[in-house]
Amino acid sequence: MMHIDIISVVPGLLQSPFEHSIMKRAQTRGLLEVRVHNLRDFTPYKHGQVDDYQFGGGAGMVMMPEPLALAIEHLQKERTYDDIIFMTPDAPVLTQKTANTLSLRENLLIICGHYKGIDQRIRDHFVTREISIGDFVLSGGELAAAVLVDAIGRLIPGVLNDETSALSDSFQDDLLSHPVYTRPANFRGWTVPDILLCGDPKKVDAWRYEQALERTRERRPDLLDKEENTQPK
Amino acid sequence: MMHIDIISVVPGLLQSPFEHSIMKRAQTRGLLEVRVHNLRDFTPYKHGQVDDYQFGGGAGMVMMPEPLALAIEHLQKERTYDDIIFMTPDAPVLTQKTANTLSLRENLLIICGHYKGIDQRIRDHFVTREISIGDFVLSGGELAAAVLVDAIGRLIPGVLNDETSALSDSFQDDLLSHPVYTRPANFRGWTVPDILLCGDPKKVDAWRYEQALERTRERRPDLLDKEENTQPK
Repeated sequence: MMHIDIISVVPGLLQSPFEHSIMKRAQTRGLLEVRVHNLRDFTPYKHGQVDDYQFGGGAGMVMMPEPLALAIEHLQKERTYDDIIFMTPDAPVLTQKTANTLSLRENLLIICGHYKGIDQRIRDHFVTREISIGDFVLSGGELAAAVLVDAIGRLIPGVLNDETSALSDSFQDDLLSHPVYTRPANFRGWTVPDILLCGDPKKVDAWRYEQALERTRERRPDLLDKEENTQPK
Repeated sequence: MMHIDIISVVPGLLQSPFEHSIMKRAQTRGLLEVRVHNLRDFTPYKHGQVDDYQFGGGAGMVMMPEPLALAIEHLQKERTYDDIIFMTPDAPVLTQKTANTLSLRENLLIICGHYKGIDQRIRDHFVTREISIGDFVLSGGELAAAVLVDAIGRLIPGVLNDETSALSDSFQDDLLSHPVYTRPANFRGWTVPDILLCGDPKKVDAWRYEQALERTRERRPDLLDKEENTQPK
């Protein structure tokens, strides 16, 4: 069972994503436990204050070090974390490989930034891993945390119904996925490729591989750097 | 006022992200309207069926073309969309530049994939733009859509309280952001850099620029390809 704690100033924002679909199933099956904690419950300051103006001036508030340190230390009394993760755009970008690695961990703590970010001293002295979900800015780390938990959670064995399904996703072999089609074979005059109806799994596999390769070449040539992907497996 | 429609098979998953924080404020202020539609309301098939096995065999269900086409056409009766966006990992990756561009649109329709993806014919004949949020796989397009709406929504003028705040974010100048600090100046013996307390805005700016450059060089040298970023502005 994987356990994930999340520290946030907007815990309610994360309510519905973990109550539906695959994340719900992972928790119902006892494979994953996600708890969202309100940072304001840990602040020693009045009126639930957790942020303040930044030293040196400039727009945007910064999350104070004390409430975060107290929240982290409180949670650390219950368990030892394999990683204390800070979601922030100025960090290495999440890849499927990172998701694979983290899906093998037992206890993770995720800190969601908000406003202009968190005090650097928390990053220097508490955080063990920083992750960005991409080169864009969000209004907080909450959705980034939800994305990370989803990407990790679905890889836990037993969460997806079909064990082979996650292995054939995009990126598990550094290729984008091939086009997919389902019923009806003729929809408004648009028909599915004949080869998918030929009944020969070998031909279908070869076509899919070619399509995946072509799509990757066209849309994400950077993924094809590794030589092994230019040859069918 | 920007209007965003989202089509999903798990509309409940998207409930809380749009009811909090910046996205709530954007809607309360009448600057953004987000509506999540249940794909099952549009299916002509029994028992709310929206997916089926894929032609050619293989693990994972595929979202059928008919319910999606009917949902899109129903929504198109109310408004003309600037873009019909499909969230999928096998697409160009979202950048801040794309978010900037889309924040100028009036009407967007976002389709969330689920299962193994959507029938390719919908992508070929209805979708006008495909966006991935990164090189990792999620259990559905819902969180990706939430991320996109958040990235776009906060850029709408008037949504963020401090207009200058979004402009000083990471990526708006192709540099990661500099470290930030707030009170107390001495926290458990860890002090903030003296220069932030010197009171000279010019010196502070120069230090911040150096720090941003150093962090970018160390963590994301790929962002520094553009020559102009090696010189202070």
